Amino acid sequence: MEAGKFRFKIDLRVRNYEVDWQGIVHNTVYLLYCEVGRVEYLKHIGATVDLNTINGINKIVLSRNEINYIKPARFDMMLEVYTRISEIGNSSFIFESLIIDPESGELIAENRAYHVWLDSEENSPQRVPEDFRKIVRDFEGNTLSERGSISRPDVG
Amino acid sequence: MEAGKFRFKIDLRVRNYEVDWQGIVHNTVYLLYCEVGRVEYLKHIGATVDLNTINGINKIVLSRNEINYIKPARFDMMLEVYTRISEIGNSSFIFESLIIDPESGELIAENRAYHVWLDSEENSPQRVPEDFRKIVRDFEGNTLSERGSISRPDVG
Amino acid sequence: MEAGKFRFKIDLRVRNYEVDWQGIVHNTVYLLYCEVGRVEYLKHIGATVDLNTINGINKIVLSRNEINYIKPARFDMMLEVYTRISEIGNSSFIFESLIIDPESGELIAENRAYHVWLDSEENSPQRVPEDFRKIVRDFEGNTLSERGSISRPDVG
Amino acid sequence: MEAGKFRFKIDLRVRNYEVDWQGIVHNTVYLLYCEVGRVEYLKHIGATVDLNTINGINKIVLSRNEINYIKPARFDMMLEVYTRISEIGNSSFIFESLIIDPESGELIAENRAYHVWLDSEENSPQRVPEDFRKIVRDFEGNTLSERGSISRPDVG
Repeated sequence: MEAGKFRFKIDLRVRNYEVDWQGIVHNTVYLLYCEVGRVEYLKHIGATVDLNTINGINKIVLSRNEINYIKPARFDMMLEVYTRISEIGNSSFIFESLIIDPESGELIAENRAYHVWLDSEENSPQRVPEDFRKIVRDFEGNTLSERGSISRPDVG
Repeated sequence: MEAGKFRFKIDLRVRNYEVDWQGIVHNTVYLLYCEVGRVEYLKHIGATVDLNTINGINKIVLSRNEINYIKPARFDMMLEVYTRISEIGNSSFIFESLIIDPESGELIAENRAYHVWLDSEENSPQRVPEDFRKIVRDFEGNTLSERGSISRPDVG
Repeated sequence: MEAGKFRFKIDLRVRNYEVDWQGIVHNTVYLLYCEVGRVEYLKHIGATVDLNTINGINKIVLSRNEINYIKPARFDMMLEVYTRISEIGNSSFIFESLIIDPESGELIAENRAYHVWLDSEENSPQRVPEDFRKIVRDFEGNTLSERGSISRPDVG
Repeated sequence: MEAGKFRFKIDLRVRNYEVDWQGIVHNTVYLLYCEVGRVEYLKHIGATVDLNTINGINKIVLSRNEINYIKPARFDMMLEVYTRISEIGNSSFIFESLIIDPESGELIAENRAYHVWLDSEENSPQRVPEDFRKIVRDFEGNTLSERGSISRPDVG
C-alpha cells in the first residue's frame, strides 16, 4: 500500500487491556482499530451510512478481511490509523488501512476489508448507490478506482 | 478450501457477549474461534509449542490473517471449527480453519493464518524445526504440502 | 454465599484469548461468565425475557455488579458457573453467581448483580411482573426472598 | 462518592466495538475504562508499580470490584474518568473511579476496586510499602484515609 494515497487518519492510544501476555497488542485488536478508522472516515466524508448497521434501506456487510502484521504495537503507544476507500466495484467496495507508529514512522499493520452493499429486504447484493459513490469520489479524487466488479479472493 | 482435508475439529458455542448490536457474531470473534482451534490442534497432535508464546528457544508469530465471512453466526449457535496445517515452508507455516454450522452444514467463515518461526534471541526467521515438521506430517499425511518457501501476499 | 442454594449450573471452558499477560483470566471476563450463566438460567426456567434487551414491553437493566475475586482461573480450565435469583423486590431483583473450579472444589469468584425492571416507554422502574415472579418462585422454591424493596448500596 | 475529592482524570472516547446490540456500552467495558484510569493514575503520581503485573518483588491483585451503573454511555461519547486512591489499609488499598459525561455533567458509573499487596514469593498479603504510601499521600493529601485494615465485604 502507498501511504501517500491516504487522506484521512485518526490517532488512537493502545489501552492496557488490549495487550496480551507478551505485553503486545492481540492480533484481533488491530482489526478493531481499523474498524474505528472506517467509522470515523465515514463520518468525516459525510456518509450517512453506518457500517454493520441496518439503516432503513441499505445494509453493508464485511465480506473479507486481510491483514499483514508487520511489527507489534505495545501498551501505551499512540498509533496513527490511516483509512481510505480504494476501490468501488458494482456491489462491493474496499477499505484500506495502515497502522503506523508515528514515533519511528514504522508500519505496524496493513488491512484490506471488503464490503458488500445488500438490499436489506432481499438480502441480495445491490449496486453501490450513486450518492455514496459521489461523496467518496469527491473525497478521494483520482486515487479511487471504480470498476465493473470486485471478486473477493478465495481463502486457501 | 476442501472440508475433506481437515482431520481435527472442536465444538464451540457462541456466547451472548460475542454478538453485536445486530445479534450476530462480531467479525473479529471468528478469528478468536480459529485461534481456539489452533491451540487445541497443537495440543491434540502433541506439539509442545505454544502459539504466541515464547517457550525458551522458539517464538512463533502470526504474520497474516485472511478471512472470508460467508454467513453470520448468531447467539447460542453451536459451531464446528475445523483446523489443519496445510503448508510448511522454510520458516513459515499456514493454518487453515473452517467454521461450520453443523445443523445446516453451511460454511460460516474460512480463515488462513500465516505463522513465522523466529529465533527468539535474534528475532529473525529460522527454519521450522524437524521435530515439529514430523508430528505435523504424521498427523496430516499427504494433505500437507512442504515446500521451499512461502511468501506472504501483499495487502492491497 | 451458600453453594447449597444454587439449583442451576453451566460448564464453561476458559479460552486462550481470555487470559492476560500473567496467563490468568482477566478480571472482567469473570463477569462475562456470570452473564452467560444468567442468560442460560433464564432459558432454563422458561423466562421469555432477554437480559439487556428490549422485548416489546419490558426492559431489564443491570444497575450494580459486585464481584469478589478469590482465586485466579487459568487457560483451559473447565469452570462451573452456578446461578440463582436470590431476591425479588418491588422493581429490582438480584442474581447471584458462583464460579467454581470443579477439580479442586475451590471458589474462583462470586458475583451479585442487581437488575431493575423498567417500563420501556417511560424508562421508569416498574413492578417486576407477576408471571416472572411465579416462574422464579417455582424454580427457586423457599430460597427465594421476596420483599418490599431492594436498595442498591452506594459505592464508596 | 464526592467528585470534589478527585484530583486526576483522563478523557476517553467510546469506540464503536465497545457498544452492544442496544447501541450502549457493555457493562464490563466501564470496568476496563476504570482500569485505564488506574494505570494512568499510577504513572501520573510516579508509582513504579504495574497493576496486575509482577515487578520483581511485589504483586498487586484485584480482590473486589463494585460498580453502580447510573446512566448508559453511547457510541462516540467522550467520557471523563476520575480516579483516586481513597484508602490504604494494612495490606489493601482502594481505588475509586467516577465516569462522567462532561457534556451534561451526569454520572455514568462509579466503581470501587479493592487491591491487595502480595509478597510475590509466598503469595501472602504483605504490608503496603512505605514508599508507595508516601507518593499516594503526597498526591492525595488529606482526602486519603489510612487505617489499620480494610475488610473486603462479603458478596451476598
